Amino acid sequence: MRKIDVCLSPELIHLYDIPNLAVVVVDIFRATSCMVTAFAHGAKEIVPVEKMDLCHAYGLKGYLTSAERNGVTPEGFDFDNSPFSYQVEKVKGSKICVTTTNGTVAIRKSRKSPALFVGAFLNISRVAEALKQWEGDALIVCAGWKGKPNLEDTLFAGALIDLLQGTYRVADDAAMMALGTYHQAASNMLQAVKGSSHVNRLLGLGIEKDISFCLERDLYPILPRLKGNKLRLD
Amino acid sequence: MRKIDVCLSPELIHLYDIPNLAVVVVDIFRATSCMVTAFAHGAKEIVPVEKMDLCHAYGLKGYLTSAERNGVTPEGFDFDNSPFSYQVEKVKGSKICVTTTNGTVAIRKSRKSPALFVGAFLNISRVAEALKQWEGDALIVCAGWKGKPNLEDTLFAGALIDLLQGTYRVADDAAMMALGTYHQAASNMLQAVKGSSHVNRLLGLGIEKDISFCLERDLYPILPRLKGNKLRLD
Repeated sequence: MRKIDVCLSPELIHLYDIPNLAVVVVDIFRATSCMVTAFAHGAKEIVPVEKMDLCHAYGLKGYLTSAERNGVTPEGFDFDNSPFSYQVEKVKGSKICVTTTNGTVAIRKSRKSPALFVGAFLNISRVAEALKQWEGDALIVCAGWKGKPNLEDTLFAGALIDLLQGTYRVADDAAMMALGTYHQAASNMLQAVKGSSHVNRLLGLGIEKDISFCLERDLYPILPRLKGNKLRLD
Repeated sequence: MRKIDVCLSPELIHLYDIPNLAVVVVDIFRATSCMVTAFAHGAKEIVPVEKMDLCHAYGLKGYLTSAERNGVTPEGFDFDNSPFSYQVEKVKGSKICVTTTNGTVAIRKSRKSPALFVGAFLNISRVAEALKQWEGDALIVCAGWKGKPNLEDTLFAGALIDLLQGTYRVADDAAMMALGTYHQAASNMLQAVKGSSHVNRLLGLGIEKDISFCLERDLYPILPRLKGNKLRLD
């Protein structure tokens, strides 16, 4: 049976054989939730970059721009890092350049994967379908928070593995722990994440409705995939 | 209240402020379980080193030597990596130099801590007592397996945090997840670890009795602590 593993932080990615794995990158609060929301509202293309300068340069080429550092948005960008910001008319048909603290780093570090998908609870079943079609092993790359593992991305990893049981088997202990963490929290995800440090940091920013929204499942059954340096719908 | 965190792999250690933390290094299967067992049987000093050559050099200076790579012991060393090997007369009063795949790396990377303790289930309550005495924050450094997190070290971290509730609060999501993983497994630790990849690797080496032994609690209420480059009883 195919194997699925979990990389709990981008800092551990060198331990995995990325060129031979389908990769799902996840940053639940909030980069990948925002990306999925943007595509669901008509974005044509998203370019993830690591530097704000480069993001601005894309802005000069006609891209809409989005930035987040430490949970907040610097001046001079079109979007912040809330999924509600992308539920607007101007997103339709747009190209967007995005830079975030954790999510865009995780995408860059995973870019050698032959099949890199963007995952969130908002599209989790669609991602699971894609992995069922994939004929090799897979890895879920959690964006974490500044290199440290976080609860919400680990919960997503566990939830995705749960959907794949019977198709994939758990490759290693990190995947097993993610699945166990998910099973503990599944009956009340919102309650579970509210105890986490990262979420408390975010709640301090006054984004409680973002938290609830990012935990909704399968609102947008779409599949963003990396092609070259751009994300597009598969 | 003081805070306790968990570093799930030595590869993440640069994310923590080691010089300002009491550190507990753990490698349940089997390096730290062996060290605790050796001290309990009279070892005077243990020097953890990373290279086998250096271990041999200590051998020439009169140290007993112990080595493990990928779970097995190369030729030419006095001890293998089984806790039963240290329950012998020659350990009494000895100095031992040890090199292992994961545990000695975790100790070296943590050496700037002002209070570095060696932890195992065999001495978990004694370690908890030491942290209760310590007047600052603390970190549990899991040795993992070749850079990846593993179940048994994470379970130890959760169990230790559980003993410290009321004294320390969980600092971040990794610690929260370790505690949750422990609570799920606590009623039958042996059953829980038998599902893990790392343990399956070890079971392939025919060391089932080592696994059970390393999960026993408080058999040896002693506290190995790093002084310079040497471990001694505190």
